Amino acid sequence: MSMNGAESLVHSLLASGVDTCFANPGTSEMHFVAALDRVPGMRCVLGLFEGVVTGAADGYARVTGKPAATLLHCGPGLANGLANLHNGRRANTMMVNCVGDQATYHRPLDAPLTADTEGLARAVSGWTRTCTTAEEVGAQAAVAVQAAYVSPGQIATLILPSDTCWNPGGIVAPKLPVPVAPQTDARKVKHAAQMLRNGKKTVLVLANAALRAGPMADAWRIAAATGATVMAQGSNARMERGAGRYPINRIPYPVDQAVAALAEFEQVILVGAVKPVIFFAYPGKPGSPVPVNADLHVMTRPENDQAQALAALAEECGNPPHVPGNVRSTEGPGTGKITTEAFARSLSALMPENAIICDEAVTFGRAFYPITHGAPAHDWMSVTGGAIGGGIPLATGAAVGAPDRRVINLQADGSAMYTIQALWTQAREKLDVTTVIFANRKYQILLGELANVGANPGRTALDMMDIGNPDLDFCAMANGMGVEAAKATTMEEFNDLFAAANRRKGPFLIEAVI
Amino acid sequence: MSMNGAESLVHSLLASGVDTCFANPGTSEMHFVAALDRVPGMRCVLGLFEGVVTGAADGYARVTGKPAATLLHCGPGLANGLANLHNGRRANTMMVNCVGDQATYHRPLDAPLTADTEGLARAVSGWTRTCTTAEEVGAQAAVAVQAAYVSPGQIATLILPSDTCWNPGGIVAPKLPVPVAPQTDARKVKHAAQMLRNGKKTVLVLANAALRAGPMADAWRIAAATGATVMAQGSNARMERGAGRYPINRIPYPVDQAVAALAEFEQVILVGAVKPVIFFAYPGKPGSPVPVNADLHVMTRPENDQAQALAALAEECGNPPHVPGNVRSTEGPGTGKITTEAFARSLSALMPENAIICDEAVTFGRAFYPITHGAPAHDWMSVTGGAIGGGIPLATGAAVGAPDRRVINLQADGSAMYTIQALWTQAREKLDVTTVIFANRKYQILLGELANVGANPGRTALDMMDIGNPDLDFCAMANGMGVEAAKATTMEEFNDLFAAANRRKGPFLIEAVI
Repeated sequence: MSMNGAESLVHSLLASGVDTCFANPGTSEMHFVAALDRVPGMRCVLGLFEGVVTGAADGYARVTGKPAATLLHCGPGLANGLANLHNGRRANTMMVNCVGDQATYHRPLDAPLTADTEGLARAVSGWTRTCTTAEEVGAQAAVAVQAAYVSPGQIATLILPSDTCWNPGGIVAPKLPVPVAPQTDARKVKHAAQMLRNGKKTVLVLANAALRAGPMADAWRIAAATGATVMAQGSNARMERGAGRYPINRIPYPVDQAVAALAEFEQVILVGAVKPVIFFAYPGKPGSPVPVNADLHVMTRPENDQAQALAALAEECGNPPHVPGNVRSTEGPGTGKITTEAFARSLSALMPENAIICDEAVTFGRAFYPITHGAPAHDWMSVTGGAIGGGIPLATGAAVGAPDRRVINLQADGSAMYTIQALWTQAREKLDVTTVIFANRKYQILLGELANVGANPGRTALDMMDIGNPDLDFCAMANGMGVEAAKATTMEEFNDLFAAANRRKGPFLIEAVI
Repeated sequence: MSMNGAESLVHSLLASGVDTCFANPGTSEMHFVAALDRVPGMRCVLGLFEGVVTGAADGYARVTGKPAATLLHCGPGLANGLANLHNGRRANTMMVNCVGDQATYHRPLDAPLTADTEGLARAVSGWTRTCTTAEEVGAQAAVAVQAAYVSPGQIATLILPSDTCWNPGGIVAPKLPVPVAPQTDARKVKHAAQMLRNGKKTVLVLANAALRAGPMADAWRIAAATGATVMAQGSNARMERGAGRYPINRIPYPVDQAVAALAEFEQVILVGAVKPVIFFAYPGKPGSPVPVNADLHVMTRPENDQAQALAALAEECGNPPHVPGNVRSTEGPGTGKITTEAFARSLSALMPENAIICDEAVTFGRAFYPITHGAPAHDWMSVTGGAIGGGIPLATGAAVGAPDRRVINLQADGSAMYTIQALWTQAREKLDVTTVIFANRKYQILLGELANVGANPGRTALDMMDIGNPDLDFCAMANGMGVEAAKATTMEEFNDLFAAANRRKGPFLIEAVI
């Protein structure tokens, strides 16, 4: 059988269950592209920039629970995708990057595009490997997929020198066993149960798979029975929430609010979460919102099976009865001026059942969250690593992964500009994404941060926060990439556009001028 | 004196002659932004994406001969700028990156935005350092500027944990001596002169500072006297060409043409160039266009003083007389259909005196070059590292650096989408840039490469090369970022738009539908 390395790569990915590839190929990947032609079964989705590709692969995996492949071109192509790989890493996203590179024997010549591809990959990957022969490509692809599945999910990067793709000798590798999430040590569960009975103020901090409807229901009945509080970490890959689910609060982003939110607790029990940390240091403020004297108990690590752990903890707590979830809010949409609160009311009233919210609304959006507890059941996905430019690609990939659900991207204007090219992929693939741009025409978050550092901003500093000179016209840019769009300056205008956008097929963008 | 680290950074950069900063700041850089407010003299230019910032700093340095600073936000912000830093590295561009990062004591907490900033920086920088105290910031800034000037220029990256910026104790450092380019060993010059006299077919391959008008004039008189050929390496940071300069050919990009271009030569003398290499390996084709049996003589390395070396070589060759340069072409602009040849004629006829051409025209543009030898004197700048997305930022930075010259950006459509956000900076800063987008609506280069690998492309492969579904409307996108724009579908339409665009102040974009 005369299969080349690239063909064995495609066959092996498919055999391992990876059937979607987000791609921005270049010269060194032409054999892979040719193989995609010859081997049926892989859906290829083109992005016009690599940050689109990696962010979309992140969104796809978060909603499907399985990895997508990416196809990237050499070190610089990978570099363009790194920021959203960083976000994916922080979301514990499973992903298999295929990075084409210089032929093994061409690399020493240091051609212009040659770069430290492996070094760049390691900065964001849990698993990195460079193939050196066509014969090993299939086997390494299977290992890469397995590595991506290592609980709670990780980024695997397979670097493919072009001769490993074009040389004959490719061998298709079968799927390897999917690693199983380890169960939580029963003693750690018992210890948590003892803490919950000792009368001290206790918070359970949930993250990762603990934020699904089932585990949260268990957390809620434990809390109801023991008087504990349940919170989520600040940014999460995916939370199941809305009507029938539970009104869990997140640890706030601003340092003072985060500290205040945890100040009362004497005990902190982590369930799939790492110890909470403040996003940035500030002079004279703590680095973690966890009170210094609180007892911290790592019951269940991110890689453990959190559903099993919470079920076991409920058992240890005497199997308390279930607690009813959120009641569907009957409040109507917001009216008048576009404010955070009015917008959140409209979001709650008008989002379709089973929507996926991709939240990169940043400052304007922080208050959306509590007001949408009573929205229809939905998933809420955040930009987890703080690298802005995650939102539009995330929504794009989520829509590829969940074609029967509406994706709603709540998007700050400043952040939108990092990966605006993703709109084109939405148009090309006719994805059911409603993008709402909150156009405040400044880096609002930085104005807050500048105040935090005690600066009284002058002209230079204000200019660096101001993206309104000239104003960005997101409708024009969306149209330029084939996405229909309209502006809203009042909630009434927004409500009409939003309801219509969510009913239609394909993408639509609303620029909410705030 | 109670100066913080950030203030000492700004003062020290200014003292070292760095007075322009391309910036995309974030939270960890707020003290730097506040310092920019308090310390007058630094021009700050905002980019909406970090690839814009680093590409612009590259363009600025290429036209001014001095480094700009960049301001980037943590590892992911640096990551977004890496592709154009890669291009800058391949251009031997001098640049000083200031990358804010987590406070020294906050880094161990692994907050979400924490990344391997230093590892990412090393992949593209000749000099990388992380400050640990406010006291050292000024001194390190001065060393960074000195490092940037190390011949032939390099990228210096200074990582600034936020506490090194906000802590008191900042000390302003004076400018350090600018490193001098080493002279070429006289024996190497003599050896070159001997080679030029031995009757063998010889090519001088020029790069870096050898591609300025003066050194090229010396190369030309040497060639005229000895029968040698003069060529330039394939992609160059800046070439001085047009009327009065010399019709130097570049080693072609396509492997077969490159091999053919050098096939006749028995001797290759490198003047500021490294040994020519093919961009990518192809099965059964050589990695270098230099004939295997040719004698290769490294007369002058990139870091040497090439002007001195060529002057010395001319001396060794008996000081031959000067040769007249290119005559100003009197051919009129192209007419009819927009072809490469017609476009090149219009470019030659209509570009203003002393223009700066930023060439990322890729496939459509390869033939522009020979037709423009007789254009008005101009500079020609290429994307040197093969990382696409260099063109629009490069033009942006060049216009900041040379406010009295027209910048003309010849831009392929596929590549334009990687850093399209740079148009907004052009509008904001009212930069004199004429952008010409060549809209063929496909990744044309990849179609050629796919043919090279012997593939007969099917639907999947063609889809991955096709960016015309939906068509990108560059005029709409430019308008959305505040840049006026118009489409041209014939050379007559183009000529009118181009002549008008080059006469006006501020940016203008022409979408040439080809």
